[in-house]
Amino acid sequence: MNASEFRRRGKEMVDYMANYMEGIEGRQVYPDVEPGYLRPLIPAAAPQEPDTFEDIINDVEKIIMPGVTHWHSPYFFAYFPTASSYPAMLADMLCGAIGCIGFSWAASPACTELETVMMDWLGKMLELPKAFLNEKAGEGGGVIQGSASEATLVALLAARTKVIHRLQAASPELTQAAIMEKLVAYSSDQAHSSVERAGLIGGVKLKAIPSDGNFAMRASALQEALERDKAAGLIPFFAIQMVATLGTTTCCSFDNLLEVGPICNKEDIWLHVDAAYAGSAFICPEFRHLLNGVEFADSFNFNPHKWLLVNFDCSAMWVKKRTDLTGAFRLDPTYLKHSHQDSGLITDYRHWQIPLGRRFRSLKMWFVFRMYGVKGLQAYIRKHVQLSHEFESLVRQDPRFEICVEVILGLVCFRLKGSNKVNEALLQRINSAKKIHLVPCHLRDKFVLRFAICSRTVESAHVQRAWEHIKELAADVLRAERE
Amino acid sequence: MNASEFRRRGKEMVDYMANYMEGIEGRQVYPDVEPGYLRPLIPAAAPQEPDTFEDIINDVEKIIMPGVTHWHSPYFFAYFPTASSYPAMLADMLCGAIGCIGFSWAASPACTELETVMMDWLGKMLELPKAFLNEKAGEGGGVIQGSASEATLVALLAARTKVIHRLQAASPELTQAAIMEKLVAYSSDQAHSSVERAGLIGGVKLKAIPSDGNFAMRASALQEALERDKAAGLIPFFAIQMVATLGTTTCCSFDNLLEVGPICNKEDIWLHVDAAYAGSAFICPEFRHLLNGVEFADSFNFNPHKWLLVNFDCSAMWVKKRTDLTGAFRLDPTYLKHSHQDSGLITDYRHWQIPLGRRFRSLKMWFVFRMYGVKGLQAYIRKHVQLSHEFESLVRQDPRFEICVEVILGLVCFRLKGSNKVNEALLQRINSAKKIHLVPCHLRDKFVLRFAICSRTVESAHVQRAWEHIKELAADVLRAERE
Repeated sequence: MNASEFRRRGKEMVDYMANYMEGIEGRQVYPDVEPGYLRPLIPAAAPQEPDTFEDIINDVEKIIMPGVTHWHSPYFFAYFPTASSYPAMLADMLCGAIGCIGFSWAASPACTELETVMMDWLGKMLELPKAFLNEKAGEGGGVIQGSASEATLVALLAARTKVIHRLQAASPELTQAAIMEKLVAYSSDQAHSSVERAGLIGGVKLKAIPSDGNFAMRASALQEALERDKAAGLIPFFAIQMVATLGTTTCCSFDNLLEVGPICNKEDIWLHVDAAYAGSAFICPEFRHLLNGVEFADSFNFNPHKWLLVNFDCSAMWVKKRTDLTGAFRLDPTYLKHSHQDSGLITDYRHWQIPLGRRFRSLKMWFVFRMYGVKGLQAYIRKHVQLSHEFESLVRQDPRFEICVEVILGLVCFRLKGSNKVNEALLQRINSAKKIHLVPCHLRDKFVLRFAICSRTVESAHVQRAWEHIKELAADVLRAERE
Repeated sequence: MNASEFRRRGKEMVDYMANYMEGIEGRQVYPDVEPGYLRPLIPAAAPQEPDTFEDIINDVEKIIMPGVTHWHSPYFFAYFPTASSYPAMLADMLCGAIGCIGFSWAASPACTELETVMMDWLGKMLELPKAFLNEKAGEGGGVIQGSASEATLVALLAARTKVIHRLQAASPELTQAAIMEKLVAYSSDQAHSSVERAGLIGGVKLKAIPSDGNFAMRASALQEALERDKAAGLIPFFAIQMVATLGTTTCCSFDNLLEVGPICNKEDIWLHVDAAYAGSAFICPEFRHLLNGVEFADSFNFNPHKWLLVNFDCSAMWVKKRTDLTGAFRLDPTYLKHSHQDSGLITDYRHWQIPLGRRFRSLKMWFVFRMYGVKGLQAYIRKHVQLSHEFESLVRQDPRFEICVEVILGLVCFRLKGSNKVNEALLQRINSAKKIHLVPCHLRDKFVLRFAICSRTVESAHVQRAWEHIKELAADVLRAERE
């Protein structure tokens, strides 16, 4: 395919994309296919001779679309939102054409420098403490990671290196293994599975701190664990606080960071704050208080690719001391050296992350932030929060249902009053009907339905229709139960 | 921006992309900017009100392009190629519109199933042993990782978990830390920095096996290290073989795998084969012998995003036993469970990788494989190899220069006969002139220039012009040295 054919096909693809987005409401949100559906539909091996573009685009509709879960349908209320916006798609197209691999400053200076400045822009939108910003040539700065899981892992590894160096400086006879055996990281018992995985990968113990009645980690419980573990000869080195994230959907995060932060600082424990979903909301002054206490953190992360209209992947991570990250990873083979490397002015982001290669992802931030403006982004967040409260009030008006945790942002955790079995039956009916799509969670021993405001195009009418549908299915379930 | 504005702007962006690719030869391959160039050119904070698309696209040319290293210029001969093709860009556009996050089968069945089948297609193109394929519902299978670094890390972690489980099954009193302290991984002393980093992250010792005269790891050297380490009470558990990758650009890989593989199998050492760059060439029968011995490996990885026209990121990894990977990472919170999960037919790729989220990257493979056909892809590889031999023969005709390692694929390592200093001066002149872009490497104590055939559009005329330019600068350097 040459440039002139690309001009033609690219424009056809733009129309296909626009048609898809415009018509998505008409597609069934969750597919009908069974596992293994796709293999019989396509050849067993790649063709020797080229197929035409027409063949392929026809197959997209015939083979791919029937197996797609439509995350951007206004009837998709599952998991968490994943961002989708036209400005981000335009930026991704440009990113694809430039196609640079920005592992070092020299590999494409614009790729590195725009990222540094965009992370400052975003940090300012969140009113992050200045220590996390890069602009005054301070010690902090931001980086785009691929996912919150990666950010958690990178923070844990940096903390691990730091504590090992500190202890070995004091007692040179200590081996790395002897130290690692005693390292303990802490999270709430409501934390995301990525935290457990980071502990597994890093080869350190991870202890879950029992959460309080609002599913939050409290200072007293952490302090108790620290005392017990230190008495047992262990070395606490890392704590992760989930802010209004999975499981911890309450407002108590406000108290948490302010409570837990000072303990971590006093005990020389690296504090990583993960607000994967909620972080985007902090660009609105009325939600920013949920992040109070972030000033005690060593690292902070959230995902603009969830709720800030920047298509996946774009996970924003800041640290107070860049050298903590680069110290954990820095290796400099000859073929990656360049003449500016030691100038102190430049950033080689490969030292901040697990992979070597990286795309020009900051273009997406730049396009989205400029084409929406801060006010446009705030309006978007507020609309979602308003819709979740609308759903909440519908649920509260129905005495058969209960709201399980306070609704703060765009997520409503609710259930039928009664057994887990009846709620499992309700969810099963919802997801079999496939008019809307939800996923469940467990809050302690309760099976709970999650209604997350996800799509960029979801409106009050969709929420109303979803609720009517849920009510009908609930009536069926309750009737079946009585019979 | 609504769909109708996207239709318009998207088509303008398609033209911008096509213009960029068509005109790239006219842009200076390496930028003139100094570190810190970008920040003063853009506001210190995001705008409150939206900017227009025109503002932004104008700024791309004014602010971004002056800082871009043009990886797809036919005068870019640095690092390794990074893939760029129109079919991959079209697929990425579609991926952006669908915007699903395929962490589990249910999260978008098409995303998972197309990946499984595409990895089989690619495995067959490489004539991988059947044990690595998924199609007959065997124990093996493929997955798209973000980078070779990630694949190496995932393999090392899987191997670590496997050996820990094996030893604990035999001696339940052994702690994980006690085992980890003794674990040793092995690589050639020429291996990529990502291997050292994987060892660091995994918290295990990594030993570099001295390479032979052709920069290859040999069986005798490995066997010697194994005996010495086992005698010292250590536990060898992982070896990585780099096939014709950075530093190991010779043909000796052929002997290596066949030599080293059986030792690893006999000693119960996980063998990971990394052919990040070279792997793409193995779709040509005349190069496939370089991969002989892969049948001894537990895992194999290469990067279609380097040399197979599938835009970054797309790193292809296969394992013989899927459960080795999933066993290392599997964690199943409620909100990610779905009804098909335990059917045995389906794949939840989140258990195969570090991050949770993942894009619909297999679309790129599908578009590229179909629109080029296997024959088109083979022709592309062969053209690059032919161009590197053309450059090689130009170098060999000039008695002032030497070729440093046998040229097998698309990379020529060469230098002026003489001191490192004179070669450093030559490289410095080349990269200051900015007509072409090269990076160096060290082969033992020698400073060497690397000439990598990179761009999709590079032709004989570009190679000839590059060589004329290098010869002129070499004459200047040699003249300056004599004076």
